[in-house]
Amino acid sequence: MSDIVSYVESKAQKAKEASRVLASLSSKKKDEALLAMADALLDGAQEILAANEQDVACAKEKGISGALLDRLMLTLQRINDMAIGLREVAMLPDPVGEIEQMWKRPNGLEIGRMRVPLGVIGIIYEARPNVTVDAAGLCLKSGNAVLLRGSGEALESNKAITQVITQGALSSGIPEGAVGLIEEPSRAGVQAMLRLDRYIDVLIPRGGAGLIRTVMENATVPVIATGVGNCHIYVDRVANEKQAVEIILNAKTQRPGVCNAVETLLVHQDIAPRFLSELARRLGDAGVEVRGCNRAVEIVPTWHPATEEDWDTEYLDLILAVKVVEGFEQAVDHITVHGTQHSECIITQDYSLARRFLHEVDAAAVYVNASTRFTDGGQFGLGAEMGISTQKLHARGPMGLRELTTVKYIILGEGQIR
Amino acid sequence: MSDIVSYVESKAQKAKEASRVLASLSSKKKDEALLAMADALLDGAQEILAANEQDVACAKEKGISGALLDRLMLTLQRINDMAIGLREVAMLPDPVGEIEQMWKRPNGLEIGRMRVPLGVIGIIYEARPNVTVDAAGLCLKSGNAVLLRGSGEALESNKAITQVITQGALSSGIPEGAVGLIEEPSRAGVQAMLRLDRYIDVLIPRGGAGLIRTVMENATVPVIATGVGNCHIYVDRVANEKQAVEIILNAKTQRPGVCNAVETLLVHQDIAPRFLSELARRLGDAGVEVRGCNRAVEIVPTWHPATEEDWDTEYLDLILAVKVVEGFEQAVDHITVHGTQHSECIITQDYSLARRFLHEVDAAAVYVNASTRFTDGGQFGLGAEMGISTQKLHARGPMGLRELTTVKYIILGEGQIR
Repeated sequence: MSDIVSYVESKAQKAKEASRVLASLSSKKKDEALLAMADALLDGAQEILAANEQDVACAKEKGISGALLDRLMLTLQRINDMAIGLREVAMLPDPVGEIEQMWKRPNGLEIGRMRVPLGVIGIIYEARPNVTVDAAGLCLKSGNAVLLRGSGEALESNKAITQVITQGALSSGIPEGAVGLIEEPSRAGVQAMLRLDRYIDVLIPRGGAGLIRTVMENATVPVIATGVGNCHIYVDRVANEKQAVEIILNAKTQRPGVCNAVETLLVHQDIAPRFLSELARRLGDAGVEVRGCNRAVEIVPTWHPATEEDWDTEYLDLILAVKVVEGFEQAVDHITVHGTQHSECIITQDYSLARRFLHEVDAAAVYVNASTRFTDGGQFGLGAEMGISTQKLHARGPMGLRELTTVKYIILGEGQIR
Repeated sequence: MSDIVSYVESKAQKAKEASRVLASLSSKKKDEALLAMADALLDGAQEILAANEQDVACAKEKGISGALLDRLMLTLQRINDMAIGLREVAMLPDPVGEIEQMWKRPNGLEIGRMRVPLGVIGIIYEARPNVTVDAAGLCLKSGNAVLLRGSGEALESNKAITQVITQGALSSGIPEGAVGLIEEPSRAGVQAMLRLDRYIDVLIPRGGAGLIRTVMENATVPVIATGVGNCHIYVDRVANEKQAVEIILNAKTQRPGVCNAVETLLVHQDIAPRFLSELARRLGDAGVEVRGCNRAVEIVPTWHPATEEDWDTEYLDLILAVKVVEGFEQAVDHITVHGTQHSECIITQDYSLARRFLHEVDAAAVYVNASTRFTDGGQFGLGAEMGISTQKLHARGPMGLRELTTVKYIILGEGQIR
């Protein structure tokens, strides 16, 4: 066994041991620890900023810039925001120990479903040090140990953050190993995590489609896939067109770099000439580049013609693909073929079509007459989230504390036998 | 691409297409189809029996005998039981379309969680033709298409069964491809299934630990692991000892070959001399072979000494391992190290220890004072089951219709934007 594999294994084993203690901790203890971690973050801000400066300097040397560099960079304000995030998680209700249902069988057995932590959650993520804190907070609150593997670019920042919050947690009686960081920037560290199903109960990769695919293809640990969103809005023949324009503008431009932003607009042919002309003006004002199908480009000749590839592209940018469709069926078919089952929306005043869309479109979040940008734990009222699941197993859509738990059956008897 | 891979892929693709139709079928339609499938089974009984005779003859030639041959062999009675099973599934409530919860956000958005089918469920199983019918019935009722891959030994039986029930289903308007059988006995057929995450939403391997491990290690499709059960009963110092004897006898002997049978007994040292002597007589009468720790063998010298391996063995036979423990903590530690998180039981009259056991033992089903043999969908009151999940993600314990579904968020707006 290589050194890296045995290093990762020992970290995972410690996390497993810690998870057994965490599972029985009271909500009060966990909340105290979260608040202590928040305080520790602020107290340790200078250490964290110094470590982050090293990461940022390295990243600049490597030629990293723009959004990537911005995500890596920490400020006092950002550290403060992380601390606020921890305090907010402390305020959320604790799902652990909740008995969701209890029933009695004819033989007198009482059977219930009790919510319990998953155990050890592995997070594999990119150069975003705030994820280190968010993930640690959500996992701790839900009674799980967490094993973090951030990108090598953020290693010094993550080390400083983990050290600081672990001190806070330990001072409140949280066991060692509850927040583990894999301080091993090579790919071998990730590879080792993927196969440790003996110790790790679930892996959540947070990052681009490539990272998620690699994890899915190589993991024996169960995986929750997150975040790839090729989202559509379909504007029906009978729609409030003013509303439609505002929703499209919001879904495309309010924050184009995130997974719940709209990427393709489908428009009913009967309203396309009028609707697209008006929309073109507004999109132009907002600096959105449009790639249209032939019919769309006929209507708005300044738009670029779309290629087949456009229908499958998550731009994450101020670019929108537009297609004119014959009607509802063609819109749903397009979404079925090209969608990533994230967030899909119809804009219509037709009652029956609204209901059909809700039933027939297969996605984590299906909307009528609202911006796809609402697919978010906070916006849904679920509290802070660990990402948005685009798979069907276990968790679908925003993953809050509840999605970081599982259930066990408890059975109370007085000597019953079969 | 090999012929086998493209054959399996085309089957999976057809299943995916069928799943889109199935997702919107009314409960009435699905129940009619289940009843038609039951009728078709009885009408086609002679064809099925003839095909089964071929399988049985081949199996005998290969030297297969005993329990394995018995599981493979069909009779008119067994076909009748399968038909009854389908009728029972038709009577169960349909989880699909249920809106579990709906809430309103401050901005007026109404958000709900709607239960929807998983899509395509792949089942990989051994030479048990009854699984073909059970799985088809449960998947259809929950709105899923199913892709079946039974063992080569049952291929002719499975072909005949699938043909017969498909005719019944088609006559009730179920789309073609809803029940697909991989008629490819080689391992390459299974391997191809494991990587088809484009079409298959979940894989459920039903069989021995080796099969399950192979599937987990090679699948990119999410897997639900089922059925390995190294179950324990711990008899505490303060226990109703008569009750304890009856529970142990039942859990070991009522059906020793199944996953919820007890495999290891842990007994508190203070009661061990008296309790084990009494128990030894009853186990002896029932023909149970015991493998005891040193202290147990001192008390009952006719028992065989256990080896370390015994604590990790799922006998599935009339064999019981017995260990004398110092108390509650040692019992829980033993279960933590050697258990498979299936079904674990404490027998005690101590209120606080009962509660601690329920909270501290990590398993799909945790019992106080009842036989582990109750871990079963029917016994829990959940209806027919697709197996017992021993993993934590998505489903834990008996998997009924509800566990064959997922949720989607539906969001109803009137033009809300962020």
